[in-house]
Amino acid sequence: MAELSRASGIPVATIKFYLRERLLPAGERTGPNQASYGEEHLRRLRLIRGLLEIGGLSVATARGVIDAVDSELPLTQSFGVAQRAVSDKIDPGDIDPDALAGIDRLVEGWLVSGDNPGRLAAAQVLQTFESLGQKDERSWFSRYAAAALLVAEADLDQVEAQASREDMAETVVIGTVLGDALFSGLRRAAQEHVSTLRYPVLPEPDPTPTRE
Amino acid sequence: MAELSRASGIPVATIKFYLRERLLPAGERTGPNQASYGEEHLRRLRLIRGLLEIGGLSVATARGVIDAVDSELPLTQSFGVAQRAVSDKIDPGDIDPDALAGIDRLVEGWLVSGDNPGRLAAAQVLQTFESLGQKDERSWFSRYAAAALLVAEADLDQVEAQASREDMAETVVIGTVLGDALFSGLRRAAQEHVSTLRYPVLPEPDPTPTRE
Repeated sequence: MAELSRASGIPVATIKFYLRERLLPAGERTGPNQASYGEEHLRRLRLIRGLLEIGGLSVATARGVIDAVDSELPLTQSFGVAQRAVSDKIDPGDIDPDALAGIDRLVEGWLVSGDNPGRLAAAQVLQTFESLGQKDERSWFSRYAAAALLVAEADLDQVEAQASREDMAETVVIGTVLGDALFSGLRRAAQEHVSTLRYPVLPEPDPTPTRE
Repeated sequence: MAELSRASGIPVATIKFYLRERLLPAGERTGPNQASYGEEHLRRLRLIRGLLEIGGLSVATARGVIDAVDSELPLTQSFGVAQRAVSDKIDPGDIDPDALAGIDRLVEGWLVSGDNPGRLAAAQVLQTFESLGQKDERSWFSRYAAAALLVAEADLDQVEAQASREDMAETVVIGTVLGDALFSGLRRAAQEHVSTLRYPVLPEPDPTPTRE
């Protein structure tokens, strides 16, 4: 265990906590006070850190994601478990049925289940947007939907490139959480770019005009 | 003021607080204990609510945004003030210069200032991503950048469609905050769609087979 701690950079006390909480499987017993840990323990530790620190999950929710990774669930379903775990819970009862219908029209033809957390979150945005007196100009919403499809294809490609189910689940969780932050960062940079192109700030007049 | 409260749905005590905090300009005095408020006060109240409730800004930060709206700053700069106000503050000193250089290569050719909050946030994501042992597969990062450009064009179109500077600033703030939530919701819905297309779940065998 001291070696596992060195290799992973995680303190022994934390590793013991993960073992007690059944996040990390026990090592293979090699003596009365010794166990051997392998590559899969190192990989699992990385997944646990990703879930707890990057995903901000509770131990119980992280255990649910890990159980889904270990189970024989079809890949789509284990994606769903990981994705739901890192999404805010929204009570469908809090959402105006008109806003839900609006989002359903927006993503018509998409294969999305009724309790997809993103469908509910998008409906909540639409509801707030309208309550603030904003109107959808030049297809703001559907241009977002088109961009979201491009990004989802990139996300799935990133997941598919992983070597194992465990790595895939880790990438789903990390990609979902980091992807939100990455996109919002790049969007702010792109907004500055596009607005500078559209409204160029005129340069200050040259203080030392060249003599004709 | 009672009328302004009725028209806006905001309690008189709250309106008085906004006046004291110089978020809302005083009405035109029409008597020793009376003032008249117009359409521009209603619009300003909507902006204040958007900043404080949707944007989650402090009163001092909201005042900064409102001052930028009222000033004669070029539009690009007042966008910048509104955008910065609703973005997390990141200390550039906390970011690995290699990660910053990586993002700068990614957005090469974009007109982005060094302290753009999105540039720093994206670099922070790249740094975390790499520290977790993830690798950029099939241009994950640059596909995000391309999608962010599409969304930024839609954002600027939404802003340009507004009638006044004040409405534009409101839309920048509301669009920045709600746009993040909208995109992450639609992305989760799109992920389910794309993963269901790629990994269709086979239907359960029919429990009551028809007789041959």
